[in-house]
Amino acid sequence: MSFNTFGTLFRVTTFGESHGPAIGCVVDGCPPGLPLSEEDIQTDLDRRRPGQSRFTTQRREPDRVKILSGVFNDDTLAGAVTTGTPITLLIENTDQRSKDYSDIRDKFRPGHADYTYHAKYGIRDYRGGGRSSARETAARVAAGAVARKVIHGMRVRGALIQMGPLTIDRSRWDWEETARNPLFSPDPVAAEHFADYLETIRQEGSSVGAVVEIVAEGVPAGLGAPLYGKLSADIAAAMMSIPAVKGVEIGGGFGAARLRGEENADEMFPDDSGRPRFGSNHAGGILGGISTGQPVVCRFAVKPTSSILTPRATVTTSGEAAEIVTRGRHDPCVGIRAVPVGEAMMACVLADHLLRARAQAALD
Amino acid sequence: MSFNTFGTLFRVTTFGESHGPAIGCVVDGCPPGLPLSEEDIQTDLDRRRPGQSRFTTQRREPDRVKILSGVFNDDTLAGAVTTGTPITLLIENTDQRSKDYSDIRDKFRPGHADYTYHAKYGIRDYRGGGRSSARETAARVAAGAVARKVIHGMRVRGALIQMGPLTIDRSRWDWEETARNPLFSPDPVAAEHFADYLETIRQEGSSVGAVVEIVAEGVPAGLGAPLYGKLSADIAAAMMSIPAVKGVEIGGGFGAARLRGEENADEMFPDDSGRPRFGSNHAGGILGGISTGQPVVCRFAVKPTSSILTPRATVTTSGEAAEIVTRGRHDPCVGIRAVPVGEAMMACVLADHLLRARAQAALD
Amino acid sequence: MSFNTFGTLFRVTTFGESHGPAIGCVVDGCPPGLPLSEEDIQTDLDRRRPGQSRFTTQRREPDRVKILSGVFNDDTLAGAVTTGTPITLLIENTDQRSKDYSDIRDKFRPGHADYTYHAKYGIRDYRGGGRSSARETAARVAAGAVARKVIHGMRVRGALIQMGPLTIDRSRWDWEETARNPLFSPDPVAAEHFADYLETIRQEGSSVGAVVEIVAEGVPAGLGAPLYGKLSADIAAAMMSIPAVKGVEIGGGFGAARLRGEENADEMFPDDSGRPRFGSNHAGGILGGISTGQPVVCRFAVKPTSSILTPRATVTTSGEAAEIVTRGRHDPCVGIRAVPVGEAMMACVLADHLLRARAQAALD
Amino acid sequence: MSFNTFGTLFRVTTFGESHGPAIGCVVDGCPPGLPLSEEDIQTDLDRRRPGQSRFTTQRREPDRVKILSGVFNDDTLAGAVTTGTPITLLIENTDQRSKDYSDIRDKFRPGHADYTYHAKYGIRDYRGGGRSSARETAARVAAGAVARKVIHGMRVRGALIQMGPLTIDRSRWDWEETARNPLFSPDPVAAEHFADYLETIRQEGSSVGAVVEIVAEGVPAGLGAPLYGKLSADIAAAMMSIPAVKGVEIGGGFGAARLRGEENADEMFPDDSGRPRFGSNHAGGILGGISTGQPVVCRFAVKPTSSILTPRATVTTSGEAAEIVTRGRHDPCVGIRAVPVGEAMMACVLADHLLRARAQAALD
Repeated sequence: MSFNTFGTLFRVTTFGESHGPAIGCVVDGCPPGLPLSEEDIQTDLDRRRPGQSRFTTQRREPDRVKILSGVFNDDTLAGAVTTGTPITLLIENTDQRSKDYSDIRDKFRPGHADYTYHAKYGIRDYRGGGRSSARETAARVAAGAVARKVIHGMRVRGALIQMGPLTIDRSRWDWEETARNPLFSPDPVAAEHFADYLETIRQEGSSVGAVVEIVAEGVPAGLGAPLYGKLSADIAAAMMSIPAVKGVEIGGGFGAARLRGEENADEMFPDDSGRPRFGSNHAGGILGGISTGQPVVCRFAVKPTSSILTPRATVTTSGEAAEIVTRGRHDPCVGIRAVPVGEAMMACVLADHLLRARAQAALD
Repeated sequence: MSFNTFGTLFRVTTFGESHGPAIGCVVDGCPPGLPLSEEDIQTDLDRRRPGQSRFTTQRREPDRVKILSGVFNDDTLAGAVTTGTPITLLIENTDQRSKDYSDIRDKFRPGHADYTYHAKYGIRDYRGGGRSSARETAARVAAGAVARKVIHGMRVRGALIQMGPLTIDRSRWDWEETARNPLFSPDPVAAEHFADYLETIRQEGSSVGAVVEIVAEGVPAGLGAPLYGKLSADIAAAMMSIPAVKGVEIGGGFGAARLRGEENADEMFPDDSGRPRFGSNHAGGILGGISTGQPVVCRFAVKPTSSILTPRATVTTSGEAAEIVTRGRHDPCVGIRAVPVGEAMMACVLADHLLRARAQAALD
Repeated sequence: MSFNTFGTLFRVTTFGESHGPAIGCVVDGCPPGLPLSEEDIQTDLDRRRPGQSRFTTQRREPDRVKILSGVFNDDTLAGAVTTGTPITLLIENTDQRSKDYSDIRDKFRPGHADYTYHAKYGIRDYRGGGRSSARETAARVAAGAVARKVIHGMRVRGALIQMGPLTIDRSRWDWEETARNPLFSPDPVAAEHFADYLETIRQEGSSVGAVVEIVAEGVPAGLGAPLYGKLSADIAAAMMSIPAVKGVEIGGGFGAARLRGEENADEMFPDDSGRPRFGSNHAGGILGGISTGQPVVCRFAVKPTSSILTPRATVTTSGEAAEIVTRGRHDPCVGIRAVPVGEAMMACVLADHLLRARAQAALD
Repeated sequence: MSFNTFGTLFRVTTFGESHGPAIGCVVDGCPPGLPLSEEDIQTDLDRRRPGQSRFTTQRREPDRVKILSGVFNDDTLAGAVTTGTPITLLIENTDQRSKDYSDIRDKFRPGHADYTYHAKYGIRDYRGGGRSSARETAARVAAGAVARKVIHGMRVRGALIQMGPLTIDRSRWDWEETARNPLFSPDPVAAEHFADYLETIRQEGSSVGAVVEIVAEGVPAGLGAPLYGKLSADIAAAMMSIPAVKGVEIGGGFGAARLRGEENADEMFPDDSGRPRFGSNHAGGILGGISTGQPVVCRFAVKPTSSILTPRATVTTSGEAAEIVTRGRHDPCVGIRAVPVGEAMMACVLADHLLRARAQAALD
């Protein structure tokens, strides 16, 4: 990962600002011959789209994706397929409300990237957060939809497992449930608690953090490479690059620090064909940076949205003390919409590692 | 990060197996004119060296580093300096005891990378873990010593803050203390508890996990780049690439998920020169992936060593059920020696980002 | 250079097919604060635009560029400036004439990339050559216009110095002249000969090759890096990546093979300030892969357009013998429009190396 | 290519200075399971070794290569094989004669990289040219020996086809002959003329340029990628990165500029199985940057050695006018030893593209 591109062989470059003409991405390195339509991508985008419940920003945009390059169709084909050339996906910004930006222009919002962009570049597009806006994650989700085509035998799903102090009960985990509530909770009881809690937070003009879990099933053993191309390291970077994420763990994660060796190492037993079957998955599907064939399990922590209605002390661009209240359209818990974003990042990392594994070890 | 190289401009390539002739690294992209001697590097290596207490592997090697390229000295200079060309650091393996490897050759050790290397490559150097051995981290520490020269105004320090269920008391934090006990604990009281606990673990032939904290002070605001060159993402990947690491967090980390916006966002106040002074550091020195000028704070979780004396169920390379006991020389808590390794990785990431920031934004 | 991206720090990713909705590029890594308007880019694009004389394709498109991201303007600024985030430049395809593509769909055109794309990907967008169309070079020219902003103290110019068997007389070299004739010839006499010759070629439905020379002045000493980041190597790759280019040389080039050491090595003399002034420039401004401060001089050979009216033997996609005549709108000498493309590639390479030099050696 | 590493998936990092302890390389990304011994590499190194005839430097070194990592052997294997981890190859410097370097320390040698390294880094290892010495090419040849294992169905050979004003007669081309004369000439008659001419040059303390041709046979169609990963662009960069190379061409090269479309485009005819057979190979085996299945043909121009006995005007490091005579052990025609170096670079580029093609298009 570097600059605005991530991936080594399945390479995604995103671009665009919150209030510019458009956002989008270029996906380079995609294998040829994969069916790909705008509808395929739109389905994923719609899961991330704002304005779908009272818990996400009221910015209302259809987020319609256009494919500008990299696919081809003619009457000899059953539908558009990838050609192996760069796939450009464009999403126009249509709801950039005209407003007065002088407050955000002149003051650094605490918890936001305003000050750091200013320190780094000397100039920043302050409208809606510019490049640092979570709006950029739509481009990630679009790229992830392409990645899912590449890893078609694998399944990547995500869930919200903690909101502020509230957590799910894992005994009630039901993947189907994540599609039934607007919070992506896999636990229907927790979904209700989350909703009640978040409604209070929202009415108070506050915000709250969350933890998201992403699980990839069907991942073959052998993806990931020593020592700086570890699957775990690339997942960590991918998730940490999502706005507001402050922590990432694989498998047992921080909990592993409390364990003893006998508790942590997953025992192996031969299955009928003599291949290892693991007795547990503390490893989260990765050992030595390489996939084991078990589900790859990752969790990441999302901090509370920094845009809140409580006045906060800050500094102006000219160095004076000030207070700021961040009005506008914000998610009280950005962790919710981070679920499809986390899935997309996982799909992209797996697509990249699948291609890398094919190259060196002829694995598929 | 990819393959066996990490960094974009300050680039480190490591090589070598546990029981091959040598391990080492090539550091490319280092600025010219920096004083660099073997002693400078040896000092850092000695902090990681095995056999220094009863809590680290009894493999006894001097780990003497040789500089093979990239520095120059003549009588017009006060000492050797970097030339801007690749710096190669070599550490010969001298204590590869002759032993019977048939057990480890034929059986996959649970929790180790044996099975995944086998699945990926079809062949593996099983002696001492081969490439996946923690011995490789000596090369990281050597590279980190070079990185420290590049970031000479910054200070990177690490500490062991948790061992199994035991944690330090932050009110007793004393950086000096980390040099006084063999466990890198910043809390002298915890150091004793850790030692007692670990002695029990060791005598039982078991192992335990740990949490390490790395703090970088003097980091200027403006390091890190949106969106896939975030300082936080590169730190996450760097730490997650260390053997046995299963989780990484920045600043508040997973704790931020439990907070509300008012608690988490660090307020800013102007200092005497009008530059922002932060009232707290939940951000861990990074906002929007770019350094704020506050200390950069990172923690990572290390799983318990998978080599233990308790017999564990496993599978042979020919697919049969078996039991394995991992004898040999092992650290009961690899988290201890991960402290200088984590420092080295942080130093390398900061050196890389310092060069990257100079390039684009003429920052220094 | 790899995939559809080139550059290490000043990174250009191009996308788009000849007959898709649009072509364009994402320029990542550009320093912030540089004035950049669509007009700045349009000026360069207009020099490459088709349909400007009878010697270039009659495809008529305005090639209007839109900036989709990476610049910002408000009433505190004198005009739009770069922000340091990715700059996306889009050029819509407006003149994709509806036509019958069955001939090109079913037969591989000799000299074109039809067969190799088919062999590699199994599928190809055959309309107008798809991704392999010279139309993609408009995106390079657009990126080059941004690069020129980065290297504002340097001047990059190109000229057509050979067409088929005809060459210019260097004693008549006049840079102003390249803007006066539609062939970019620096020699007004040769310009007329070229035009007469090409008119014959054109009327015969044939095509001819050419040689282009690119000169960069004002390049500071110290750009380029040993050993695989040589300025010369990056220029070679950049020029060889232009469609139809089959050879690249720096300074004396292939002529240097015929020289003796005394003739080739450029002597140095101190100027008034003691800095080296070179007595000649056989090196083409590059020694050991690093710029000397003299003009950087590069030439590249462009093969004749493969689209000609003479029937040629070929093979169908189903493996049968066939003949093909490539009708349509084609340049009889693609070398002409390669002049602004070569300039753009040189500007991009220099911008990249300027940033790289800043990073490692604090040079500017 | 960037810094001291080249290749995207088959990645070679070289290190070392002419008069430091050692030179070498790390080859990363090599597929596992390939037989590889030091003897395999030594065979190639011996072809490049100095001191083998009166036409190459009298520096006498055995250039013995040691494999430090990345291969494994045990009694279950027939011999050492690659493991997929980084392969480190080390060649110690044994003949660094003690001498007085004050002349070269204080004066910039014309045609050498002395001044540009000084301008870039402010410091340089002037002993024997330091990093810019042609000695580094031994590391390339070693890496090339590994690459040949990866592309085992392909054959890469090189020849000297021009020396100063003298050229071979292609009608006498005999690959076997290149092994019979110390000049790698494929034409036995030219070999004698070259030898006579070079002896005169040598006795006069002068030097001369040359042209080398590299041919790769057995390259499958489909290697190389649009648009900045073109096989031709990577070959151009690879060859231009060799010391003293000033020009590179593919197939017809600069000669193509003189041709018309009918002469240049290679016609295709179906072979018995319906696959295209080309009537000629002006393309040099590459169309649109992708291999056609024909032999890949590349030529590069090598300038005359800049070290000559004729005094030349130069400048001292303190900015004063001076004269310099470059004594020492030098090749009067570095083009000779560039033949195995060019082969190695071609092998490395092909290995890299073979892996890249496998990854995206499952081609092998």
